[in-house]
Amino acid sequence: MLITSTGNERIKHLKALIKKSSLRKEEGLYVVEGWRAFEEIPKELLCEAFVAESYRGRCSGKNVYIVSDRVIESVSDTGTSQGVIATVKMRDSVRPDYKKGGFFIACERLQDPGNLGTIIRMSEAAGVCSVILSKDTVDLYNPKTVRATMGASFRVPVFITEDFCAELELMKKAGINVYGAALEESIDYADNDYTHPTAFVIGNEGNGLTQAAKKACTGLVRIPMEGKVESLNASVAASVLAFEAYRQKRISVRKK
Amino acid sequence: MLITSTGNERIKHLKALIKKSSLRKEEGLYVVEGWRAFEEIPKELLCEAFVAESYRGRCSGKNVYIVSDRVIESVSDTGTSQGVIATVKMRDSVRPDYKKGGFFIACERLQDPGNLGTIIRMSEAAGVCSVILSKDTVDLYNPKTVRATMGASFRVPVFITEDFCAELELMKKAGINVYGAALEESIDYADNDYTHPTAFVIGNEGNGLTQAAKKACTGLVRIPMEGKVESLNASVAASVLAFEAYRQKRISVRKK
Repeated sequence: MLITSTGNERIKHLKALIKKSSLRKEEGLYVVEGWRAFEEIPKELLCEAFVAESYRGRCSGKNVYIVSDRVIESVSDTGTSQGVIATVKMRDSVRPDYKKGGFFIACERLQDPGNLGTIIRMSEAAGVCSVILSKDTVDLYNPKTVRATMGASFRVPVFITEDFCAELELMKKAGINVYGAALEESIDYADNDYTHPTAFVIGNEGNGLTQAAKKACTGLVRIPMEGKVESLNASVAASVLAFEAYRQKRISVRKK
Repeated sequence: MLITSTGNERIKHLKALIKKSSLRKEEGLYVVEGWRAFEEIPKELLCEAFVAESYRGRCSGKNVYIVSDRVIESVSDTGTSQGVIATVKMRDSVRPDYKKGGFFIACERLQDPGNLGTIIRMSEAAGVCSVILSKDTVDLYNPKTVRATMGASFRVPVFITEDFCAELELMKKAGINVYGAALEESIDYADNDYTHPTAFVIGNEGNGLTQAAKKACTGLVRIPMEGKVESLNASVAASVLAFEAYRQKRISVRKK
Protein backbone atom coordinates (compact mmCIF):
# COMPACT_ATOMS: atom_id res chain seq x y z
CA MET A 1 0.00 0.00 0.00
CA LEU A 2 1.25 3.42 -0.97
CA ILE A 3 0.53 6.37 1.33
CA THR A 4 -0.30 9.35 -0.90
CA SER A 5 -2.15 11.62 1.49
CA THR A 6 -0.81 13.95 4.16
CA GLY A 7 -4.10 13.23 5.91
CA ASN A 8 -3.08 9.60 6.56
CA GLU A 9 -3.17 8.84 10.29
CA ARG A 10 0.38 7.48 10.38
CA ILE A 11 1.68 10.54 8.55
CA LYS A 12 -0.15 12.88 10.92
CA HIS A 13 1.39 10.99 13.84
CA LEU A 14 4.87 11.27 12.29
CA LYS A 15 4.46 15.03 11.84
CA ALA A 16 3.30 15.41 15.41
CA LEU A 17 6.33 13.44 16.69
CA ILE A 18 8.66 15.78 14.78
CA LYS A 19 7.01 18.88 16.20
CA LYS A 20 5.98 17.99 19.72
CA SER A 21 8.48 17.24 22.43
CA SER A 22 5.62 16.36 24.78
CA LEU A 23 4.27 13.68 22.43
CA ARG A 24 7.78 12.24 21.99
CA LYS A 25 8.11 11.95 25.77
CA GLU A 26 4.63 10.46 26.18
CA GLU A 27 5.24 7.77 23.58
CA GLY A 28 8.96 7.23 24.14
CA LEU A 29 9.47 7.64 20.39
CA TYR A 30 11.40 10.05 18.20
CA VAL A 31 12.13 10.58 14.52
CA VAL A 32 15.26 9.96 12.45
CA GLU A 33 15.64 11.13 8.84
CA GLY A 34 17.90 10.07 5.99
CA TRP A 35 19.45 6.78 4.89
CA ARG A 36 22.81 7.36 6.53
CA ALA A 37 21.35 7.74 10.00
CA PHE A 38 18.67 5.10 9.27
CA GLU A 39 21.29 2.45 8.65
CA GLU A 40 22.79 3.08 12.06
CA ILE A 41 19.55 2.60 14.01
CA PRO A 42 19.91 -0.50 16.24
CA LYS A 43 17.29 -3.05 15.10
CA GLU A 44 15.72 -3.38 18.55
CA LEU A 45 15.03 0.38 18.61
CA LEU A 46 13.53 0.76 15.14
CA CYS A 47 9.75 1.10 15.28
CA GLU A 48 8.43 2.16 11.84
CA ALA A 49 10.10 3.19 8.58
CA PHE A 50 8.51 5.48 5.98
CA VAL A 51 10.28 5.04 2.66
CA ALA A 52 9.85 7.41 -0.28
CA GLU A 53 8.36 5.77 -3.35
CA SER A 54 11.50 6.50 -5.37
CA TYR A 55 13.52 4.44 -2.87
CA ARG A 56 11.03 1.54 -2.81
CA GLY A 57 12.91 -1.74 -2.45
CA ARG A 58 15.83 -0.31 -0.48
CA CYS A 59 14.18 -1.44 2.74
CA SER A 60 11.35 -3.86 3.49
CA GLY A 61 9.72 -5.53 6.48
CA LYS A 62 6.65 -5.52 8.67
CA ASN A 63 6.66 -1.90 9.73
CA VAL A 64 7.88 -0.39 6.48
CA TYR A 65 5.46 1.95 4.69
CA ILE A 66 5.94 3.27 1.17
CA VAL A 67 5.02 6.95 0.91
CA SER A 68 4.76 9.17 -2.15
CA ASP A 69 7.76 11.47 -2.52
CA ARG A 70 5.54 14.53 -2.19
CA VAL A 71 4.09 13.39 1.13
CA ILE A 72 7.44 12.40 2.62
CA GLU A 73 8.97 15.77 1.68
CA SER A 74 6.05 17.51 3.37
CA VAL A 75 6.75 15.62 6.58
CA SER A 76 10.51 16.13 6.64
CA ASP A 77 11.92 18.54 9.20
CA THR A 78 14.59 19.68 6.74
CA GLY A 79 12.33 19.81 3.69
CA THR A 80 14.37 17.04 2.08
CA SER A 81 13.80 13.67 3.68
CA GLN A 82 16.66 11.95 1.84
CA GLY A 83 14.25 9.13 1.14
CA VAL A 84 13.45 7.72 4.56
CA ILE A 85 11.96 8.81 7.87
CA ALA A 86 11.85 6.39 10.82
CA THR A 87 10.33 6.35 14.27
CA VAL A 88 12.75 5.09 16.88
CA LYS A 89 12.31 4.04 20.51
CA MET A 90 14.14 6.18 23.05
CA ARG A 91 16.79 4.39 25.04
CA ASP A 92 16.53 4.31 28.82
CA SER A 93 18.24 7.15 30.65
CA VAL A 94 20.51 5.22 33.03
CA ARG A 95 22.87 6.77 35.59
CA PRO A 96 26.43 5.60 34.90
CA ASP A 97 28.25 3.70 37.62
CA TYR A 98 30.61 6.53 38.55
CA LYS A 99 32.60 4.22 40.83
CA LYS A 100 33.98 2.55 37.73
CA GLY A 101 35.62 5.85 36.82
CA GLY A 102 35.72 6.97 33.20
CA PHE A 103 35.28 10.17 31.24
CA PHE A 104 32.11 12.28 31.28
CA ILE A 105 30.65 15.43 29.77
CA ALA A 106 27.88 17.12 31.74
CA CYS A 107 25.75 19.87 30.16
CA GLU A 108 23.75 22.34 32.19
CA ARG A 109 20.86 24.17 30.50
CA LEU A 110 22.30 23.86 27.01
CA GLN A 111 19.80 25.55 24.68
CA ASP A 112 20.85 24.91 21.12
CA PRO A 113 19.95 21.50 19.65
CA GLY A 114 22.85 21.71 17.18
CA ASN A 115 25.29 22.22 20.04
CA LEU A 116 23.92 19.26 21.99
CA GLY A 117 24.07 17.00 18.93
CA THR A 118 27.61 18.11 18.10
CA ILE A 119 28.68 17.46 21.70
CA ILE A 120 27.26 13.92 21.58
CA ARG A 121 29.01 13.28 18.25
CA MET A 122 32.40 14.51 19.44
CA SER A 123 31.92 12.74 22.80
CA GLU A 124 31.89 9.37 21.10
CA ALA A 125 35.05 10.32 19.20
CA ALA A 126 36.86 11.53 22.33
CA GLY A 127 36.04 8.36 24.26
CA VAL A 128 33.44 9.85 26.61
CA CYS A 129 31.62 7.10 28.59
CA SER A 130 28.40 8.98 29.14
CA VAL A 131 26.90 12.42 28.56
CA ILE A 132 24.94 13.85 31.51
CA LEU A 133 22.23 16.45 30.88
CA SER A 134 20.42 18.72 33.29
CA LYS A 135 16.70 18.17 32.83
CA ASP A 136 16.29 21.72 31.49
CA THR A 137 18.76 21.09 28.65
CA VAL A 138 17.33 21.16 25.11
CA ASP A 139 15.48 18.00 24.07
CA LEU A 140 17.85 15.17 23.16
CA TYR A 141 15.22 13.97 20.70
CA ASN A 142 14.70 17.28 18.91
CA PRO A 143 15.17 16.48 15.18
CA LYS A 144 18.00 19.04 14.97
CA THR A 145 19.82 17.41 17.88
CA VAL A 146 19.40 13.96 16.36
CA ARG A 147 20.70 15.18 12.99
CA ALA A 148 23.78 16.82 14.49
CA THR A 149 24.76 13.64 16.37
CA MET A 150 25.32 11.92 12.99
CA GLY A 151 24.33 8.55 14.46
CA ALA A 152 26.31 8.90 17.69
CA SER A 153 23.02 9.24 19.63
CA PHE A 154 22.45 5.50 19.09
CA ARG A 155 25.76 4.68 20.76
CA VAL A 156 26.72 7.28 23.38
CA PRO A 157 24.85 6.67 26.67
CA VAL A 158 23.03 9.79 27.82
CA PHE A 159 21.65 10.30 31.32
CA ILE A 160 19.17 13.08 32.08
CA THR A 161 19.42 14.03 35.73
CA GLU A 162 16.67 15.58 37.85
CA ASP A 163 19.21 17.34 40.09
CA PHE A 164 22.28 18.52 38.21
CA CYS A 165 24.35 19.70 41.17
CA ALA A 166 23.61 16.53 43.15
CA GLU A 167 24.84 14.59 40.11
CA LEU A 168 28.15 16.48 40.15
CA GLU A 169 28.43 15.72 43.88
CA LEU A 170 27.87 12.01 43.17
CA MET A 171 30.69 12.09 40.64
CA LYS A 172 33.05 13.78 43.08
CA LYS A 173 32.21 11.24 45.78
CA ALA A 174 33.13 8.48 43.36
CA GLY A 175 36.56 10.07 42.90
CA ILE A 176 35.95 11.80 39.57
CA ASN A 177 37.59 15.19 39.01
CA VAL A 178 34.77 17.48 37.95
CA TYR A 179 35.93 20.54 35.98
CA GLY A 180 33.50 23.30 35.14
CA ALA A 181 34.16 25.50 32.10
CA ALA A 182 34.10 29.11 33.29
CA LEU A 183 35.77 32.32 32.17
CA GLU A 184 36.34 33.71 35.66
CA GLU A 185 38.15 32.39 38.71
CA SER A 186 39.39 29.52 36.59
CA ILE A 187 42.78 28.18 35.49
CA ASP A 188 44.13 27.41 32.00
CA TYR A 189 42.55 24.05 31.10
CA ALA A 190 45.87 22.85 29.67
CA ASP A 191 47.48 22.99 33.13
CA ASN A 192 45.40 20.12 34.53
CA ASP A 193 46.03 16.39 34.44
CA TYR A 194 43.09 14.56 32.86
CA THR A 195 44.53 11.05 32.92
CA HIS A 196 42.43 10.26 36.02
CA PRO A 197 38.62 9.92 35.93
CA THR A 198 37.39 13.27 34.64
CA ALA A 199 34.16 15.11 33.95
CA PHE A 200 33.84 18.42 32.10
CA VAL A 201 30.83 20.56 32.89
CA ILE A 202 29.53 22.86 30.15
CA GLY A 203 27.03 25.62 30.80
CA ASN A 204 24.34 27.49 28.90
CA GLU A 205 25.38 29.27 25.67
CA GLY A 206 24.53 32.76 26.86
CA ASN A 207 25.04 32.57 30.60
CA GLY A 208 27.54 29.80 31.28
CA LEU A 209 27.28 27.62 34.39
CA THR A 210 25.06 28.56 37.32
CA GLN A 211 26.78 29.54 40.57
CA ALA A 212 25.47 26.35 42.17
CA ALA A 213 27.00 24.17 39.47
CA LYS A 214 30.31 26.01 39.71
CA LYS A 215 30.36 25.41 43.46
CA ALA A 216 29.70 21.71 42.95
CA CYS A 217 32.79 21.35 40.72
CA THR A 218 36.22 20.18 41.88
CA GLY A 219 37.71 23.12 39.97
CA LEU A 220 37.04 25.58 37.17
CA VAL A 221 38.95 25.69 33.89
CA ARG A 222 39.03 28.24 31.12
CA ILE A 223 40.16 28.10 27.53
CA PRO A 224 42.47 31.12 27.13
CA MET A 225 41.45 33.35 24.23
CA GLU A 226 43.05 36.06 22.10
CA GLY A 227 41.26 38.98 20.50
CA LYS A 228 37.97 40.49 21.54
CA VAL A 229 35.84 37.37 21.26
CA GLU A 230 33.81 36.96 24.46
CA SER A 231 33.37 33.22 24.46
CA LEU A 232 33.57 30.12 22.34
CA ASN A 233 30.62 28.22 20.94
CA ALA A 234 29.57 25.68 23.62
CA SER A 235 30.26 22.65 21.41
CA VAL A 236 33.67 24.05 20.43
CA ALA A 237 34.58 24.61 24.09
CA ALA A 238 33.46 21.09 25.05
CA SER A 239 35.46 19.65 22.15
CA VAL A 240 38.66 21.52 22.98
CA LEU A 241 38.46 20.26 26.58
CA ALA A 242 37.52 16.68 25.67
CA PHE A 243 40.25 16.32 23.06
CA GLU A 244 42.87 17.73 25.43
CA ALA A 245 41.90 14.99 27.90
CA TYR A 246 41.97 12.38 25.15
CA ARG A 247 45.39 13.64 24.00
CA GLN A 248 46.78 13.34 27.53
CA LYS A 249 45.39 9.81 27.82
CA ARG A 250 47.03 8.72 24.56
CA ILE A 251 50.38 10.03 25.77
CA SER A 252 49.92 8.37 29.15
CA VAL A 253 49.13 4.99 27.53
CA ARG A 254 52.22 5.23 25.30
CA LYS A 255 54.43 5.90 28.32
CA LYS A 256 53.25 2.73 30.06
CA MET B 1 9.64 59.01 9.26
CA LEU B 2 8.38 55.60 10.25
CA ILE B 3 8.53 52.78 7.71
CA THR B 4 5.33 50.75 8.11
CA SER B 5 5.12 48.96 4.77
CA THR B 6 6.97 45.88 3.58
CA GLY B 7 6.58 47.44 0.14
CA ASN B 8 8.99 50.27 1.04
CA GLU B 9 11.92 50.35 -1.38
CA ARG B 10 14.58 50.25 1.35
CA ILE B 11 12.86 47.30 3.02
CA LYS B 12 12.63 45.44 -0.29
CA HIS B 13 16.33 46.10 -0.84
CA LEU B 14 17.15 44.81 2.67
CA LYS B 15 15.18 41.60 2.06
CA ALA B 16 16.95 41.08 -1.24
CA LEU B 17 20.36 41.54 0.41
CA ILE B 18 19.48 38.86 2.99
CA LYS B 19 18.39 36.40 0.31
CA LYS B 20 20.67 37.00 -2.65
CA SER B 21 24.35 36.29 -2.51
CA SER B 22 24.73 37.74 -6.02
CA LEU B 23 23.24 41.10 -4.96
CA ARG B 24 25.50 41.18 -1.90
CA LYS B 25 28.53 40.68 -4.14
CA GLU B 26 27.36 43.25 -6.67
CA GLU B 27 26.82 45.94 -4.04
CA GLY B 28 29.60 44.94 -1.64
CA LEU B 29 27.02 45.01 1.17
CA TYR B 30 25.68 42.47 3.64
CA VAL B 31 23.25 42.36 6.54
CA VAL B 32 23.82 42.12 10.29
CA GLU B 33 20.99 41.52 12.80
CA GLY B 34 20.65 42.13 16.51
CA TRP B 35 21.99 44.75 18.93
CA ARG B 36 24.90 42.69 20.16
CA ALA B 37 26.42 42.29 16.70
CA PHE B 38 25.32 45.83 15.72
CA GLU B 39 27.39 47.38 18.47
CA GLU B 40 30.50 45.66 17.16
CA ILE B 41 30.19 46.98 13.59
CA PRO B 42 33.15 49.28 12.88
CA LYS B 43 31.76 52.77 12.17
CA GLU B 44 33.46 53.06 8.80
CA LEU B 45 31.70 49.89 7.62
CA LEU B 46 28.17 50.71 8.78
CA CYS B 47 25.94 51.76 5.90
CA GLU B 48 22.30 51.88 7.08
CA ALA B 49 20.54 50.88 10.31
CA PHE B 50 16.88 49.84 10.51
CA VAL B 51 15.67 50.14 14.09
CA ALA B 52 12.42 48.64 15.35
CA GLU B 53 9.93 51.23 16.60
CA SER B 54 10.04 49.75 20.10
CA TYR B 55 13.79 50.45 20.24
CA ARG B 56 13.47 54.00 18.88
CA GLY B 57 16.05 56.23 20.54
CA ARG B 58 18.62 53.51 21.09
CA CYS B 59 20.42 54.60 17.95
CA SER B 60 20.21 57.70 15.78
CA GLY B 61 22.03 59.32 12.88
CA LYS B 62 21.81 60.10 9.20
CA ASN B 63 21.25 56.61 7.89
CA VAL B 64 19.06 55.34 10.70
CA TYR B 65 15.49 54.40 9.77
CA ILE B 66 12.73 53.63 12.25
CA VAL B 67 10.64 50.67 11.15
CA SER B 68 7.44 49.26 12.62
CA ASP B 69 8.08 46.09 14.65
CA ARG B 70 5.87 44.08 12.31
CA VAL B 71 7.85 45.10 9.24
CA ILE B 72 11.25 44.49 10.82
CA GLU B 73 10.22 41.01 11.98
CA SER B 74 9.07 40.21 8.45
CA VAL B 75 12.51 41.13 7.12
CA SER B 76 14.55 39.24 9.71
CA ASP B 77 16.31 36.09 8.60
CA THR B 78 15.68 34.47 11.98
CA GLY B 79 12.11 35.72 12.36
CA THR B 80 13.18 37.77 15.38
CA SER B 81 15.25 40.78 14.49
CA GLN B 82 16.23 41.61 18.08
CA GLY B 83 15.37 45.18 17.27
CA VAL B 84 17.90 46.19 14.65
CA ILE B 85 19.03 45.19 11.18
CA ALA B 86 21.99 46.92 9.53
CA THR B 87 23.59 46.94 6.12
CA VAL B 88 27.36 46.74 6.34
CA LYS B 89 30.13 47.24 3.75
CA MET B 90 32.23 44.16 3.02
CA ARG B 91 35.89 44.45 3.91
CA ASP B 92 38.48 43.98 1.21
CA SER B 93 39.74 40.45 0.73
CA VAL B 94 43.51 40.95 1.09
CA ARG B 95 46.14 38.23 0.82
CA PRO B 96 48.16 38.09 4.06
CA ASP B 97 51.90 38.67 3.87
CA TYR B 98 52.89 35.06 4.48
CA LYS B 99 56.55 36.04 4.77
CA LYS B 100 55.73 37.57 8.14
CA GLY B 101 54.80 34.09 9.38
CA GLY B 102 51.84 33.65 11.68
CA PHE B 103 48.97 31.24 12.16
CA PHE B 104 46.37 30.49 9.47
CA ILE B 105 43.25 28.42 8.90
CA ALA B 106 42.43 27.58 5.29
CA CYS B 107 39.02 26.13 4.33
CA GLU B 108 38.41 24.27 1.09
CA ARG B 109 34.81 23.97 -0.17
CA LEU B 110 33.25 24.32 3.27
CA GLN B 111 29.48 24.11 2.73
CA ASP B 112 27.76 24.91 5.99
CA PRO B 113 27.45 28.61 6.90
CA GLY B 114 27.27 27.74 10.62
CA ASN B 115 30.56 25.88 10.39
CA LEU B 116 32.27 28.77 8.59
CA GLY B 117 31.00 31.29 11.14
CA THR B 118 32.04 29.11 14.06
CA ILE B 119 35.51 28.68 12.53
CA ILE B 120 35.92 32.45 12.18
CA ARG B 121 34.76 32.96 15.78
CA MET B 122 37.14 30.38 17.23
CA SER B 123 39.95 31.59 14.95
CA GLU B 124 39.97 34.96 16.63
CA ALA B 125 40.07 33.24 20.03
CA ALA B 126 42.94 30.93 19.04
CA GLY B 127 45.05 33.79 17.68
CA VAL B 128 44.67 33.00 13.98
CA CYS B 129 46.06 35.86 11.82
CA SER B 130 43.90 35.25 8.79
CA VAL B 131 41.31 32.76 7.51
CA ILE B 132 41.78 31.71 3.87
CA LEU B 133 38.76 30.45 1.90
CA SER B 134 38.60 28.63 -1.42
CA LYS B 135 36.31 30.60 -3.71
CA ASP B 136 33.78 27.73 -3.71
CA THR B 137 33.41 27.88 0.08
CA VAL B 138 29.99 28.95 1.40
CA ASP B 139 29.34 32.71 1.31
CA LEU B 140 31.12 34.56 4.09
CA TYR B 141 28.26 37.07 4.06
CA ASN B 142 25.42 34.54 4.32
CA PRO B 143 23.30 35.74 7.29
CA LYS B 144 23.83 32.38 9.04
CA THR B 145 27.61 32.68 8.69
CA VAL B 146 27.55 36.25 9.99
CA ARG B 147 25.42 35.23 12.98
CA ALA B 148 27.69 32.32 13.91
CA THR B 149 30.79 34.55 13.91
CA MET B 150 29.33 36.48 16.87
CA GLY B 151 31.07 39.66 15.74
CA ALA B 152 34.43 38.06 14.94
CA SER B 153 33.78 38.65 11.22
CA PHE B 154 34.47 42.36 11.80
CA ARG B 155 37.90 41.60 13.22
CA VAL B 156 39.38 38.42 11.72
CA PRO B 157 40.90 39.10 8.27
CA VAL B 158 39.51 36.74 5.64
CA PHE B 159 41.05 36.18 2.21
CA ILE B 160 39.11 34.44 -0.56
CA THR B 161 41.54 32.86 -2.98
CA GLU B 162 40.89 32.10 -6.65
CA ASP B 163 43.32 29.17 -6.62
CA PHE B 164 43.32 27.28 -3.34
CA CYS B 165 46.22 24.92 -4.04
CA ALA B 166 48.41 27.74 -5.36
CA GLU B 167 47.65 29.58 -2.11
CA LEU B 168 48.91 26.62 -0.05
CA GLU B 169 52.06 26.57 -2.21
CA LEU B 170 52.58 30.28 -1.51
CA MET B 171 52.36 29.59 2.21
CA LYS B 172 54.87 26.77 1.99
CA LYS B 173 57.30 28.92 0.00
CA ALA B 174 57.10 31.51 2.76
CA GLY B 175 58.18 28.86 5.28
CA ILE B 176 54.78 28.08 6.78
CA ASN B 177 54.07 24.48 7.76
CA VAL B 178 50.80 23.61 6.05
CA TYR B 179 48.92 20.73 7.68
CA GLY B 180 45.86 19.25 6.02
CA ALA B 181 43.23 17.53 8.16
CA ALA B 182 42.71 14.04 6.70
CA LEU B 183 41.67 10.69 8.12
CA GLU B 184 44.00 8.62 5.95
CA GLU B 185 47.76 8.63 5.44
CA SER B 186 48.01 11.14 8.25
CA ILE B 187 49.67 11.28 11.66
CA ASP B 188 48.24 12.08 15.10
CA TYR B 189 47.92 15.88 15.15
CA ALA B 190 49.27 15.98 18.70
CA ASP B 191 52.65 14.67 17.53
CA ASN B 192 53.52 17.83 15.57
CA ASP B 193 55.22 21.00 16.71
CA TYR B 194 53.05 24.03 15.97
CA THR B 195 55.24 26.68 17.57
CA HIS B 196 56.55 27.67 14.11
CA PRO B 197 54.41 29.41 11.47
CA THR B 198 51.51 27.04 10.88
CA ALA B 199 48.44 26.69 8.69
CA PHE B 200 45.67 24.10 9.14
CA VAL B 201 43.69 23.14 6.07
CA ILE B 202 40.10 21.99 6.57
CA GLY B 203 38.09 20.29 3.83
CA ASN B 204 34.45 19.91 2.87
CA GLU B 205 32.05 18.46 5.47
CA GLY B 206 31.11 15.38 3.46
CA ASN B 207 34.20 14.74 1.38
CA GLY B 208 37.17 16.22 3.19
CA LEU B 209 40.09 17.76 1.29
CA THR B 210 40.57 17.23 -2.45
CA GLN B 211 43.55 15.14 -3.53
CA ALA B 212 45.13 18.26 -5.02
CA ALA B 213 44.89 20.16 -1.73
CA LYS B 214 46.31 17.20 0.20
CA LYS B 215 49.25 17.09 -2.18
CA ALA B 216 49.88 20.79 -1.70
CA CYS B 217 50.20 20.35 2.09
CA THR B 218 53.47 19.94 4.02
CA GLY B 219 51.87 17.02 5.85
CA LEU B 220 48.54 15.51 6.85
CA VAL B 221 47.23 15.27 10.40
CA ARG B 222 44.34 13.36 11.87
CA ILE B 223 42.44 13.69 15.11
CA PRO B 224 42.37 10.15 16.54
CA MET B 225 38.84 8.99 17.36
CA GLU B 226 37.23 6.29 19.49
CA GLY B 227 33.95 4.55 18.74
CA LYS B 228 32.21 4.23 15.41
CA VAL B 229 31.94 7.91 14.61
CA GLU B 230 33.22 8.51 11.07
CA SER B 231 34.37 12.08 11.39
CA LEU B 232 34.10 15.21 13.47
CA ASN B 233 32.08 18.28 12.60
CA ALA B 234 34.35 20.53 10.49
CA SER B 235 34.29 23.40 12.98
CA VAL B 236 35.04 21.02 15.86
CA ALA B 237 38.01 19.55 13.97
CA ALA B 238 39.36 23.01 13.12
CA SER B 239 38.96 24.08 16.77
CA VAL B 240 40.73 21.03 18.20
CA LEU B 241 43.69 21.64 15.86
CA ALA B 242 43.82 25.40 16.40
CA PHE B 243 43.65 25.18 20.19
CA GLU B 244 46.36 22.51 20.26
CA ALA B 245 48.60 24.93 18.35
CA TYR B 246 47.63 27.76 20.70
CA ARG B 247 48.33 25.52 23.73
CA GLN B 248 51.80 24.68 22.41
CA LYS B 249 52.52 28.36 21.81
CA ARG B 250 51.52 29.30 25.37
CA ILE B 251 53.86 26.65 26.76
CA SER B 252 56.66 27.76 24.44
CA VAL B 253 56.28 31.41 25.53
CA ARG B 254 56.38 30.41 29.20
CA LYS B 255 59.62 28.49 28.68
CA LYS B 256 61.36 31.52 27.16
